[in-house]
Amino acid sequence: MAEDKRFVEEITPMDEDFTRWYTDIVTKAELIEYSSVRGCCVIRPYAYAIWENIQKNLDAMFKATGHQNVYMPMFIPESLLQREKDHVEGFAPEVAWVTVGGNEKLAERLCVRPTSETLFCEHYKNIIHSHRDLPKLYNQWCSVVRWEKTTRPFLRTMEFLWQEGHTAHATAEEAQAETERMLNVYADFCEQYLAIPVVKGRKTDKEKFAGAEATYTIESLMHDGKALQSGTSHNFGDGFARAFGIQYTDKNNQLQYVHQTSWGLSTRIMGAIIMVHGDDSGLVLPPRIAPVQLVIIPIAMHKEGVLDKAEELKARLGASFRVELDSSDKNPGWKFSEYEMKGVPLRLEIGPKDIEKNSCVLVRRDTREKIFVSLDELEAKAAEILDDIQASLYQKALKHREDTTSSAVTYEEFKDAVENRPGFVKAMWCGDEECENKIKEDTGATSRCMPFEQEVLGDNKCVCCGREAKALVYWGRAY
Amino acid sequence: MAEDKRFVEEITPMDEDFTRWYTDIVTKAELIEYSSVRGCCVIRPYAYAIWENIQKNLDAMFKATGHQNVYMPMFIPESLLQREKDHVEGFAPEVAWVTVGGNEKLAERLCVRPTSETLFCEHYKNIIHSHRDLPKLYNQWCSVVRWEKTTRPFLRTMEFLWQEGHTAHATAEEAQAETERMLNVYADFCEQYLAIPVVKGRKTDKEKFAGAEATYTIESLMHDGKALQSGTSHNFGDGFARAFGIQYTDKNNQLQYVHQTSWGLSTRIMGAIIMVHGDDSGLVLPPRIAPVQLVIIPIAMHKEGVLDKAEELKARLGASFRVELDSSDKNPGWKFSEYEMKGVPLRLEIGPKDIEKNSCVLVRRDTREKIFVSLDELEAKAAEILDDIQASLYQKALKHREDTTSSAVTYEEFKDAVENRPGFVKAMWCGDEECENKIKEDTGATSRCMPFEQEVLGDNKCVCCGREAKALVYWGRAY
Repeated sequence: MAEDKRFVEEITPMDEDFTRWYTDIVTKAELIEYSSVRGCCVIRPYAYAIWENIQKNLDAMFKATGHQNVYMPMFIPESLLQREKDHVEGFAPEVAWVTVGGNEKLAERLCVRPTSETLFCEHYKNIIHSHRDLPKLYNQWCSVVRWEKTTRPFLRTMEFLWQEGHTAHATAEEAQAETERMLNVYADFCEQYLAIPVVKGRKTDKEKFAGAEATYTIESLMHDGKALQSGTSHNFGDGFARAFGIQYTDKNNQLQYVHQTSWGLSTRIMGAIIMVHGDDSGLVLPPRIAPVQLVIIPIAMHKEGVLDKAEELKARLGASFRVELDSSDKNPGWKFSEYEMKGVPLRLEIGPKDIEKNSCVLVRRDTREKIFVSLDELEAKAAEILDDIQASLYQKALKHREDTTSSAVTYEEFKDAVENRPGFVKAMWCGDEECENKIKEDTGATSRCMPFEQEVLGDNKCVCCGREAKALVYWGRAY
Repeated sequence: MAEDKRFVEEITPMDEDFTRWYTDIVTKAELIEYSSVRGCCVIRPYAYAIWENIQKNLDAMFKATGHQNVYMPMFIPESLLQREKDHVEGFAPEVAWVTVGGNEKLAERLCVRPTSETLFCEHYKNIIHSHRDLPKLYNQWCSVVRWEKTTRPFLRTMEFLWQEGHTAHATAEEAQAETERMLNVYADFCEQYLAIPVVKGRKTDKEKFAGAEATYTIESLMHDGKALQSGTSHNFGDGFARAFGIQYTDKNNQLQYVHQTSWGLSTRIMGAIIMVHGDDSGLVLPPRIAPVQLVIIPIAMHKEGVLDKAEELKARLGASFRVELDSSDKNPGWKFSEYEMKGVPLRLEIGPKDIEKNSCVLVRRDTREKIFVSLDELEAKAAEILDDIQASLYQKALKHREDTTSSAVTYEEFKDAVENRPGFVKAMWCGDEECENKIKEDTGATSRCMPFEQEVLGDNKCVCCGREAKALVYWGRAY
């Protein structure tokens, strides 16, 4: 028990210091390890297993919507990166450059991809000729590099893993439909698999992607009231097509430019899973992406029959769930803490008395509720509880977001809300970047998005300058 | 029909020019596209889908043998790469260096990983403390970069995709067992999934991995009689552990160095699939890794009921196989060529007459045999034929390898064999690197491996110098 307590006390309580709590979780739950490479982390097996579950399910959603995976080179020649003006301006300051290869100085520098629009454009120019070649619905899973000044595990690292979808369409309408379709795929995925509710909306021009006509985003809210941009979908119109000369002949034999989109979701989302669901005992993982959904802890393991029964249950439950049995010689209390730290949704305790009664105890990670279950109905009961945990996590996160979202009509209300009531602040905006800049400077809050579900607050005046408003905006401090 | 013919004629016959045949296949079957990045290719959807099938099955074999996936940074600081002397000597000449990040010159150069031993060692040093922490059985799927002078799609590219396993063990015996286990996993995978027979053996010191005590390899033989190293497994002993200080306390509380292994298989194997099974009509894919196992081509598609029946068969077969239906308005002859080019193992033709007879025609890609099948037993028959194709491809490749493997006792016989009978040449070797070098210079053949199944040829004398031999070696020209 002493060992048990010591173990738990190592985590900084989240209300005391959320930043340290986060760092404690990512290291003590063995999600990451710092490396000697500046701003880069080792993604350890437990974290990578979560990412594999994210990949598997999201990839299936991409394929179900007609997308194909490809792989592009990781290097972009400097001249290629420079082809689209806004794009290079946005990314050039934060890239890593390869200047020497095989002991020789290169004639042209190669940047390590920060994103791959330019490579896809070059490829699309080569393979798109006729309207019969459209649409092209490609995606790739890879790592990208952005030379960030300050980094934090998952949230902002110099190298991160992601998927980037890149599509080409015959018309502007099709490109817009794709942009929205993939934003919805992200939103559905976050809500259904990660139990994270999101606000869907459009970014302001200031916050949009370098080279995009319009950027759409899903924004989620962390436990500490800060926002996290969790996935974005961009409509490029024909901007890249004109810069790269990507044209096709339409049905009337006329040359037309394609319309393009791109969309991405990264290991950043791991930070959201931690900060939306975690608590002072560690991670809390949604069952649908948890590497281990149920852990079996034998009680009084030395007693005859206990370990056999535990093995039997593992084999039985393993057919339906991702199950682990911890039969190490550590004491049960230590194990309880360990798997709470790791956020395993359901713990199964089985000891001599349980076996006598043909039952076991299930303990929920989210509520710590103990449930006594007959072994005869174990699979059904475990499935039911896991479903309930998945749904409860979502509802809890949604309630938290709703409880911490305020509305502000006056600038005083706005400043007070940002300062004293962490969470989203809804307020009207005139559409002028100057007001966005002033708000950021005064409060540290940035425009998260113009939500699809628009409202009018007060007299429809900009919360900052008082002029006629153009849109309702979700504001907030953000990661 | 004219269109059909033209399509096929675009491939250079393999006996006329094998190199051009290969290049034709990789581009015309839409496997790769050249990019403006020197030595890097775009891996197109069809090739990437093959790679995904390779990944899925190989990854399952890794997990079944207790391995976990992780992700390490893609950059290695120069000082870290230099920690193990042999390793850096082997790799430093062929790496790409990042020297500028975020517009600033870096204090220390970062190399883009050519392989990740050094990063795993640094990580293992941090996380291995006690014998309880062993073994560590890690693997990662990623891309690596080697600054190659001449490149060819899949076979030798500056960047390629692969997996690299890295393990740490308590004893030398365990490390050796792991090295052999993973070589066997590779061999089983190649034989069972890719239908490629391999020779398993040990590399000579000249050919072993930089930093390894021993390198094991699986060698396969291409249609043109050249060998391809298809996967390698290395035993590092405690060399890296000593260079990086990776120690654990054993059960007697004594500090010990760990023993390590690494093993890798890359997209290079895609080249083997092409060059072992392909023919003058294009790719021939083993059913177990073919993205499309069966393609349905409707005949006289305009006739009532044909397309409906084709859709119905697609739905039926889709439950058991990876199926595609081509209902485009191209003529059947064009489609036949197209899917032959793509190596789809089985073609199903269905037209009005077939429907009348409640049957269809199945055509094998490998033998072109036409098989009339009742629709009532379609699934069973298709499964049986696909199994037979998988087995036949393996047998055919094995026979080809056996037919083209010669033995040489004298140096004259050896030179004649290499020059005039493409394929492996078995010959005795004294163990001296000088003889290896001479053989390579005289004939272009390199030592492929010292096979596990050793034999003694002639009087057990080195084929080159005539001294007492130490081992039988498989020699050959190689990719």
